[in-house]
Amino acid sequence: MSDQNTYAGLTQLGQKADLPASPEQAVLERVPNPQADVDYCVRFTAPEFTSLCPMTGQPDFAHLMIDYVPDRWLVESKSLKLFLGSFRNHGAFHEDCTVMIARRLVELLEPRWLRIGGYWYPRGGIPIDVFYQTGAQPEGVWIPDQGVPPYRGRG
Amino acid sequence: MSDQNTYAGLTQLGQKADLPASPEQAVLERVPNPQADVDYCVRFTAPEFTSLCPMTGQPDFAHLMIDYVPDRWLVESKSLKLFLGSFRNHGAFHEDCTVMIARRLVELLEPRWLRIGGYWYPRGGIPIDVFYQTGAQPEGVWIPDQGVPPYRGRG
Amino acid sequence: MSDQNTYAGLTQLGQKADLPASPEQAVLERVPNPQADVDYCVRFTAPEFTSLCPMTGQPDFAHLMIDYVPDRWLVESKSLKLFLGSFRNHGAFHEDCTVMIARRLVELLEPRWLRIGGYWYPRGGIPIDVFYQTGAQPEGVWIPDQGVPPYRGRG
Amino acid sequence: MSDQNTYAGLTQLGQKADLPASPEQAVLERVPNPQADVDYCVRFTAPEFTSLCPMTGQPDFAHLMIDYVPDRWLVESKSLKLFLGSFRNHGAFHEDCTVMIARRLVELLEPRWLRIGGYWYPRGGIPIDVFYQTGAQPEGVWIPDQGVPPYRGRG
Amino acid sequence: MSDQNTYAGLTQLGQKADLPASPEQAVLERVPNPQADVDYCVRFTAPEFTSLCPMTGQPDFAHLMIDYVPDRWLVESKSLKLFLGSFRNHGAFHEDCTVMIARRLVELLEPRWLRIGGYWYPRGGIPIDVFYQTGAQPEGVWIPDQGVPPYRGRG
Amino acid sequence: MSDQNTYAGLTQLGQKADLPASPEQAVLERVPNPQADVDYCVRFTAPEFTSLCPMTGQPDFAHLMIDYVPDRWLVESKSLKLFLGSFRNHGAFHEDCTVMIARRLVELLEPRWLRIGGYWYPRGGIPIDVFYQTGAQPEGVWIPDQGVPPYRGRG
Amino acid sequence: MSDQNTYAGLTQLGQKADLPASPEQAVLERVPNPQADVDYCVRFTAPEFTSLCPMTGQPDFAHLMIDYVPDRWLVESKSLKLFLGSFRNHGAFHEDCTVMIARRLVELLEPRWLRIGGYWYPRGGIPIDVFYQTGAQPEGVWIPDQGVPPYRGRG
Amino acid sequence: MSDQNTYAGLTQLGQKADLPASPEQAVLERVPNPQADVDYCVRFTAPEFTSLCPMTGQPDFAHLMIDYVPDRWLVESKSLKLFLGSFRNHGAFHEDCTVMIARRLVELLEPRWLRIGGYWYPRGGIPIDVFYQTGAQPEGVWIPDQGVPPYRGRG
Amino acid sequence: MSDQNTYAGLTQLGQKADLPASPEQAVLERVPNPQADVDYCVRFTAPEFTSLCPMTGQPDFAHLMIDYVPDRWLVESKSLKLFLGSFRNHGAFHEDCTVMIARRLVELLEPRWLRIGGYWYPRGGIPIDVFYQTGAQPEGVWIPDQGVPPYRGRG
Amino acid sequence: MSDQNTYAGLTQLGQKADLPASPEQAVLERVPNPQADVDYCVRFTAPEFTSLCPMTGQPDFAHLMIDYVPDRWLVESKSLKLFLGSFRNHGAFHEDCTVMIARRLVELLEPRWLRIGGYWYPRGGIPIDVFYQTGAQPEGVWIPDQGVPPYRGRG
Ligand SMILES: [Ca+2]
Ligand SMILES: [Ca+2]
Ligand SMILES: [Ca+2]
Ligand SMILES: [Ca+2]
Ligand SMILES: [Ca+2]
Ligand SMILES: [Ca+2]
Ligand SMILES: [Ca+2]
Ligand SMILES: [Ca+2]
Ligand SMILES: [Ca+2]
Ligand SMILES: [Ca+2]
Ligand SMILES: [Ca+2]
Ligand SMILES: [Ca+2]
Ligand SMILES: [Ca+2]
Ligand SMILES: [Ca+2]
Ligand SMILES: [Ca+2]
Ligand SMILES: [Ca+2]
Repeated sequence: MSDQNTYAGLTQLGQKADLPASPEQAVLERVPNPQADVDYCVRFTAPEFTSLCPMTGQPDFAHLMIDYVPDRWLVESKSLKLFLGSFRNHGAFHEDCTVMIARRLVELLEPRWLRIGGYWYPRGGIPIDVFYQTGAQPEGVWIPDQGVPPYRGRG
Repeated sequence: MSDQNTYAGLTQLGQKADLPASPEQAVLERVPNPQADVDYCVRFTAPEFTSLCPMTGQPDFAHLMIDYVPDRWLVESKSLKLFLGSFRNHGAFHEDCTVMIARRLVELLEPRWLRIGGYWYPRGGIPIDVFYQTGAQPEGVWIPDQGVPPYRGRG
Repeated sequence: MSDQNTYAGLTQLGQKADLPASPEQAVLERVPNPQADVDYCVRFTAPEFTSLCPMTGQPDFAHLMIDYVPDRWLVESKSLKLFLGSFRNHGAFHEDCTVMIARRLVELLEPRWLRIGGYWYPRGGIPIDVFYQTGAQPEGVWIPDQGVPPYRGRG
Repeated sequence: MSDQNTYAGLTQLGQKADLPASPEQAVLERVPNPQADVDYCVRFTAPEFTSLCPMTGQPDFAHLMIDYVPDRWLVESKSLKLFLGSFRNHGAFHEDCTVMIARRLVELLEPRWLRIGGYWYPRGGIPIDVFYQTGAQPEGVWIPDQGVPPYRGRG
Repeated sequence: MSDQNTYAGLTQLGQKADLPASPEQAVLERVPNPQADVDYCVRFTAPEFTSLCPMTGQPDFAHLMIDYVPDRWLVESKSLKLFLGSFRNHGAFHEDCTVMIARRLVELLEPRWLRIGGYWYPRGGIPIDVFYQTGAQPEGVWIPDQGVPPYRGRG
Repeated sequence: MSDQNTYAGLTQLGQKADLPASPEQAVLERVPNPQADVDYCVRFTAPEFTSLCPMTGQPDFAHLMIDYVPDRWLVESKSLKLFLGSFRNHGAFHEDCTVMIARRLVELLEPRWLRIGGYWYPRGGIPIDVFYQTGAQPEGVWIPDQGVPPYRGRG
Repeated sequence: MSDQNTYAGLTQLGQKADLPASPEQAVLERVPNPQADVDYCVRFTAPEFTSLCPMTGQPDFAHLMIDYVPDRWLVESKSLKLFLGSFRNHGAFHEDCTVMIARRLVELLEPRWLRIGGYWYPRGGIPIDVFYQTGAQPEGVWIPDQGVPPYRGRG
Repeated sequence: MSDQNTYAGLTQLGQKADLPASPEQAVLERVPNPQADVDYCVRFTAPEFTSLCPMTGQPDFAHLMIDYVPDRWLVESKSLKLFLGSFRNHGAFHEDCTVMIARRLVELLEPRWLRIGGYWYPRGGIPIDVFYQTGAQPEGVWIPDQGVPPYRGRG
Repeated sequence: MSDQNTYAGLTQLGQKADLPASPEQAVLERVPNPQADVDYCVRFTAPEFTSLCPMTGQPDFAHLMIDYVPDRWLVESKSLKLFLGSFRNHGAFHEDCTVMIARRLVELLEPRWLRIGGYWYPRGGIPIDVFYQTGAQPEGVWIPDQGVPPYRGRG
Repeated sequence: MSDQNTYAGLTQLGQKADLPASPEQAVLERVPNPQADVDYCVRFTAPEFTSLCPMTGQPDFAHLMIDYVPDRWLVESKSLKLFLGSFRNHGAFHEDCTVMIARRLVELLEPRWLRIGGYWYPRGGIPIDVFYQTGAQPEGVWIPDQGVPPYRGRG
């Protein structure tokens, strides 16, 4: 069912790709869903997300988890990695940035459903988490909890 | 989508702000929700909450978690931190205090939905937890469990 | 909103109170719910419960968790502690004892809803847990899982 | 509410009882439910179950968890322990054995509802779990997750 | 209800079986369901799955969990182990491979319901999970969460 | 090597024994060490210890762990259980009580070495642990860490 | 061995004691060591420590653990609690404050040995821990690891 | 260095072997150590050990871990499994049984060093662990902690 | 004992400081050790370290932990944070980079002892950890394990 | 200090490299140690190791951890990965295979010290771990525990 020609038009897979300078310059790519006749969920866990605080210029860090139910397209995983890496020198607030990533993926993939969890590292002792999904979970599709343990402080 | 002018009227962000003397004197501030056209959830985890027992004057401690689905406003996180810090010399019972924090936020933010979990440190060997939400969870919005492990005593 | 006069009639709070000799002699006390106009849940975790086996007279131990949605009354926490302590020299079977504690609280508090989890220490290698609630969880009130990990034996 | 006469007819409780030679010879006993006018759930956790593989005669091991909502009867716990111990020299497949235990209990207790989780130790690197219940969970009764962590291999 | 003759036609059980050279050559076998008159769930946990990346030829690894509600047939566990082992030198993408395994089982067993969770080891720092089920969970059957903890990176 | 006559003089094993009224009335018993020609360590874990506070009369709870290297005698485990149970209505400070238990065992067993860890449940938010051993660990004997996790408060 | 007269001179135990306004005003009290003829270790775990940052006036939080081997004196635990509480409105740097607490205890108790672990909540994403002891651990005394898990960030 | 002829004399490997009726009848087998010119440690973890109580005839269970530094011989792992399985219908006390297993292995293998940890399931609420080694750990050989978490009771 | 003038010469504390463009441009600052007459250990945990791979230009991530025993100087924590942040756009191999950070600190602080643990996120499925210290741990100073759990892959 | 020319002679880094057909054909490569003037430890964690059983031809799996103190050479990490991958179709016993990997690395790197932990997945319910090091740990070098949790079976 998988077909390598599927990947013929991709520009980044198997290449040495530079980190894009900004989210705008990052090129998210997609490939046909080889199992498009059934509903299933794909989860990406990205524990290495970093952006800049728009107020102070200092780095922010987050653990991101993305779940989606593909329709005709899958996101090509290397382009996703480069897209996430492109926030490295970009300023964005936590709430805005998390939802924005989801929206870029929705625009590209037109998935049946998508959600993102942004688990941000604490600043001032109080971490912020942001949870967004495109709507109610589709019926009959299996989408487990993300199961990230809560922040505990110390001790 | 984020806009730094958004923050022009704020009185505390980026300032060296003294801890307010009481919850009444604390000024909770809000900023426009940059993603107000979608439903999403914002979670604050505050493992450093402390107030005083109204009967004995001794310190009480709690791990607080707040989830809300913003409508037009987000809470400005530094003002939230100062508001929570303002309970430091304030006496309040566990049940009352936890619900009161939620109500101050509801009054300010008029959120689509909000909840608070107050996980209080044990006194006399028996910790109290307080769970409040403004009503049933909104349909189609993703709000994960808070996932705080139960108190276990020793061993 | 909290009012210390509320506590004027209490007989045990702030006193050096002896452990009651039996559950029958224990006086559970109640105070007005300061947030009675909203629905919320209060959880007590009591990892220090002990009673006697009615067949052998040997001590039994349990980790108890009680969740309730108050209506007009809150249980006064010191009287709850003394009530639980009053089982120390009392014989009762696990199933009966756990449900009985719930019923005493229901009688006193007339809560909107209440449940109890009794997680008993193993005897003969096989622990018993007892789970009771007064009925289906009320709609729109937030009541998290109790989240006690299962017994694992050794290793 | 508990009554020691309740236990008058029991043959094993408080006796030195030999391990029955087979499940067929084991005598499961029951006692009246002292809280039969309410719905509650009783959980047994048996981390010490062992039987024999019917193909090879080698020992199999399982961690069993049983939840039930009693109607008129409770299972007497010592007879349950002896019943489970009676599989020690008995050959049965994982799926068959787990469901069979549930059925013996259902026959004896005629409970409002019952389930069993059989978490079998790995053979050939791939453990099998078996989950059976008599039907949908009864409405309004509290039955927590069994919460056994998944098998992880090593590392 | 269990019957050893049931296993008379099996070609692999109790034999020294070579690892099949490919999924196509692997022979999945089935046996009659000894408890076919009730609905229950069988879970296989396979922490030792490995295949090859179709682009680079490098090994990929996954922790797989399969849940199904049998109808007339159970999968014979040794043939399942050999089938999973047959991916050892086979190239397949994560999404495609996970769903494909489910489909082979569905074709053989015609179960009442089946799902698979594929928890793939990270490549480039970002693991992919794939979750597929044949449809909504059947009513009244007990199917616990798979409970695999999320990937956390380091620290 | 084990010999049931060894146990001929014991007064409590296999008997229905009442809980002794005080530590003074409890009879700790010993049996010959069947492996006395080698050095090894025996560990008892007693998560169900309870005594009374000598100042307030309120119950105290502890998780106790005892390690010893026997010489000629082993403690008979049922008598140890009854001895620990005899503190149920006895008042003693944490430091004193923990060390006292060790000393009673040393007096009886004259072991090559012994230690006790008393992990007391928190009072006033600050638990006390007490660690005592009779001297440096004997050379060449294996005595693992007790490994009790530290108290964490909440969250 | 314990003697209630021991506590006759104490000013705070069993009293309703106000929180001292500063560490200087706090009165640490001591009682005779009832087991002074043996070496043992006493551990206090204080997960509720809070002070103020001397630069910003904002609250700091720490989880403190204190281990000591008493000589002639034990610290009276309620006075320790009040002493730790007295830092509530006091400014001190992490390193200085942690070591200072140890020194106050050393001055009072003249213990055979003492150590303190200060596990501070993160500021700017990077927590600081401070570890101090009066010298090498005494030979032959049992002092377990403190076992506080490291800070992990998120995810 | 490994040589399949090494295994030519073994009687059980690759055979369908019946469980021996007693430890005395079990045949522990050995194979030449293929890396005998270096010192290293081999660890077996046996979470499925069961024997009978010599006093009551009821089953006992243990989690066993064995570490040894081989000299000329390795234990053949299938014969070890059958040897451990042979205790299934054998009565032995915890202390005696654990040390006896070690001694059988020492007699057969004449290892440079060996130890056993027996982590027994609780009876009467108080589990017993037994730790034995043949002497001090050999210098310069790496032997990690066994790391079994302590028994915790419930909660 | 602490003295705010101590901080008079610092250039970054309390300032809005830009992230330095490279480790070379970062200015590590020091302050006098307020407790220089005793030996103690300071630990920094930095879960947010990121640099670039010198071969591919892709981001690398690490969880860093630094322990040191100060002599006359403490590192000023904000300058440490900026120094660590300065690797954001800098290429360095794991082994080289980890040791280099330690050496910059040693050069500045001339500590009695220092170590660094670099726990790098996996690339190609195999994470690298780097452990460096300036020499044997000083006698009599308390330096706990760093206690980072090992990488486990999935499942 | 790092120098890309260092890598000029490498044959595999940055190339699309096929998996070697056997350990004998795998080419382990080395690069100069950029920090050779100090002693430090490098740890590789390889949770994805697989080989074949020499008796049955079935796959075996292990979680491997390698620690070494380099002298003049570091192992090039991609060649290490390919070397480990080359065991995929190779038969070797657990003890032999684990020690053999260590010896290949020792031969190549001539390190100051090296150890390997092989944590093998269970077969027949009893996993084997193999621990080897080249000799006593070098003085003054920091080498943390590997910290792999013990195998627990189920429950
Ligand atoms: Ca397809
Ligand atoms: Ca917007
Ligand atoms: Ca009110
Ligand atoms: Ca176990
Ligand atoms: Ca009744
Ligand atoms: Ca693993
Ligand atoms: Ca981390
Ligand atoms: Ca003997
Ligand atoms: Ca906490
Ligand atoms: Ca004394
Ligand atoms: Ca993380
Ligand atoms: Ca407990
Ligand atoms: Ca000073
Ligand atoms: Ca795994
Ligand atoms: Ca160099
Ligand atoms: Ca178990």
